Amino acid sequence: MKPQGVLLVLSGPSGAGKGTICHRLCEMRPEMAYSVSATTRAPRKGETDGVNYFFVSRQKFQEMITGNDLLEYAEIYGNCYGTPRSYVMDILNQGRDVVLEIDPQGALQVKKTFPDAVFVFIVPPSLDELSKRIYKRGTATEEVIKRRLSAATSELAYASKYDYIIVNDEVEKAANKVGNIIDAERNRAVRTFFIVDEICQNGICEER
Amino acid sequence: MKPQGVLLVLSGPSGAGKGTICHRLCEMRPEMAYSVSATTRAPRKGETDGVNYFFVSRQKFQEMITGNDLLEYAEIYGNCYGTPRSYVMDILNQGRDVVLEIDPQGALQVKKTFPDAVFVFIVPPSLDELSKRIYKRGTATEEVIKRRLSAATSELAYASKYDYIIVNDEVEKAANKVGNIIDAERNRAVRTFFIVDEICQNGICEER
Repeated sequence: MKPQGVLLVLSGPSGAGKGTICHRLCEMRPEMAYSVSATTRAPRKGETDGVNYFFVSRQKFQEMITGNDLLEYAEIYGNCYGTPRSYVMDILNQGRDVVLEIDPQGALQVKKTFPDAVFVFIVPPSLDELSKRIYKRGTATEEVIKRRLSAATSELAYASKYDYIIVNDEVEKAANKVGNIIDAERNRAVRTFFIVDEICQNGICEER
Repeated sequence: MKPQGVLLVLSGPSGAGKGTICHRLCEMRPEMAYSVSATTRAPRKGETDGVNYFFVSRQKFQEMITGNDLLEYAEIYGNCYGTPRSYVMDILNQGRDVVLEIDPQGALQVKKTFPDAVFVFIVPPSLDELSKRIYKRGTATEEVIKRRLSAATSELAYASKYDYIIVNDEVEKAANKVGNIIDAERNRAVRTFFIVDEICQNGICEER
């Protein structure tokens, strides 16, 4: 038997840099899969079904919800987005790791639907740095930016719900730490106990 | 503020090779401390107090028990052995990691007295290999060896109580995995949440 892969949920406040870390992590580990979301929105130019998104109808999306095939989902500006459980499970059962980059609200949903996932929270080195990063994105108005910053700041309070917290002071360093966490988690008893069973099945093992 | 070090409890059935892995780990990580036990037995030639053991009187040992200063203890052939909490805490509070190599019964005691420790269970690649290793030690009689093997085999059942399980097929590989676990565990939320507090204290952070 082969150990199941690790589902890594990478989250954090907007502006913490979880996207950049996730991108670097996938470069470092080409064997790792990036979770592809299902969405009801129309494909944009250059987007491929099953690569960027699984493009599905509202009815199909509703069936996925009722069929409990979504680890999390949300409606944003009238379009639905969600993470298909079956897609993630297929890859994990091949022994490959999957990374899911998602906002803290979505991560909390996954914690309920897939508690064995590994939850990593990315934080900025400081609030000043956080506001700099949010301003940088910024064609938005001062007021919108202020609202984003306040939202991002309050999202920091979600940190206590995570397994690991990583400060994103340097992308390379942070991505290495995340990779290191995946390697360690592969040895978690919940993923490796079957090995002890295999050892014992090949000989007399008492007190089973 | 500095993150506290990790207390790593390295355990497993006798013959699994936890001692060898612990030794290799300490070579790889000279900054890591090896937990020194307290004992009531007399020092042997060449043994130094505070290096090999803390040599204490029966009365002092009893005081350590009643003063809740032992993470675990046991009496073996009329001598008492135990792990002093204060010694371990001093090192952890300096931000240094501590490794404690101990049998499964002792590890279970530590799990009660120090639940934040990281529990790693070392298993042999097979029962054949386990019996080979136990035989190798062997000036003992066939019957004693059989008893040891049966005990070691039943100790495998403790695996389910641990955080991580590592197969000791190659010492170098296994020691690297343990080191990797220590690095990952340093980012555990329980050890790093104070960073989020520090970030928030340097700016407005809502929903605290």
